[in-house]
Amino acid sequence: MNKGLLIVLSGPSGSGKGTINQVIAEDPNVFLSVSATTRSPREGEQHGQHYYFITREEFEDRLKQDGMLEYNEYCGNYYGTPKKEMQQRLENGNDVILEIDVNGALNVMERVDDVVSIFIMPPSLEVLEDRLRGRGTESEEVIRQRMNEAITEIGKADQYDYIVVNDKLDDAISEVRAILSAEKHKITRMREFVKGVLNYGNE
Amino acid sequence: MNKGLLIVLSGPSGSGKGTINQVIAEDPNVFLSVSATTRSPREGEQHGQHYYFITREEFEDRLKQDGMLEYNEYCGNYYGTPKKEMQQRLENGNDVILEIDVNGALNVMERVDDVVSIFIMPPSLEVLEDRLRGRGTESEEVIRQRMNEAITEIGKADQYDYIVVNDKLDDAISEVRAILSAEKHKITRMREFVKGVLNYGNE
Repeated sequence: MNKGLLIVLSGPSGSGKGTINQVIAEDPNVFLSVSATTRSPREGEQHGQHYYFITREEFEDRLKQDGMLEYNEYCGNYYGTPKKEMQQRLENGNDVILEIDVNGALNVMERVDDVVSIFIMPPSLEVLEDRLRGRGTESEEVIRQRMNEAITEIGKADQYDYIVVNDKLDDAISEVRAILSAEKHKITRMREFVKGVLNYGNE
Repeated sequence: MNKGLLIVLSGPSGSGKGTINQVIAEDPNVFLSVSATTRSPREGEQHGQHYYFITREEFEDRLKQDGMLEYNEYCGNYYGTPKKEMQQRLENGNDVILEIDVNGALNVMERVDDVVSIFIMPPSLEVLEDRLRGRGTESEEVIRQRMNEAITEIGKADQYDYIVVNDKLDDAISEVRAILSAEKHKITRMREFVKGVLNYGNE
């Protein structure tokens, strides 16, 4: 059986990446990878669903055992992508989506050869700003900061394999699904099938 | 505006490539390229629809003017892919499908960098043989010859970008459409869009 696809799907805050990931992961064949962190759970956050909440000691043990695909430290807490569950799912033929930020995604692309990387773009910066304001929860300062982060992240989009513009959510989801389907039909993943067809005929 | 995709879609006799090409070309944005030949029209064949029927002199003139993307000679007749109409369509943003045999396709892949190549596979040699027999029009000898040609062609499938197995026609068509959609979202085709989003914000 073919291994599943390892997918990184990222984009700036307000791009809609979280919603897209969740809809794609409704497919029972797709597994949304859960990150590990040493920070405390916030209200409503569940261990194993939003994050694996582990201690600093556990995290550092895992690092020593090469148990993290990538990690970083932010505001004094570790965040990382556990390797083991991801690898098991891929071996079982499941696709695995990593919802990680742009720097994490670039780290993964450096370490893993056949990762499929998708960057979710807003149709324009104006639309992105409207979306961030529309939440109504952020101060002007936070909005300016998010916009600056978004511009920095979009500047790195050209290191991804694919760009999907999230103008209409349904279209963006269809496009992500099309990318995953196309990736499965690449010759690199179909070579065994082709060989099988030819050998069977010769037996 | 982005140029359209140049697509070669081939596969052995009985793979269903002709039907798939025709359904894909129902999209008004997709243009099925018409080959030129020096052979005589068969009953029911229309100039400009099945082939451009031209004289040997015209064909050789076009070759001298570098007017053919690829060509070959078979049973004393030339067959070739005219460049001009194809290039105009691509410039206009239309996708162009070349329905050419495997050797023609390999020639095109050598000459054009960004061609998208799709090989249509039967699910097995047994199914292919059943399909060829099912037509009820071919002698045993012709069937053996077609099967041998198919095996040779499938042996070259690993030089294509994508393999689509035509087990159920509707699925195969969806998969081809997914490949074309994914190709349009590759970073190489989206770079200008990304730049546009960033520049607009800075103006």
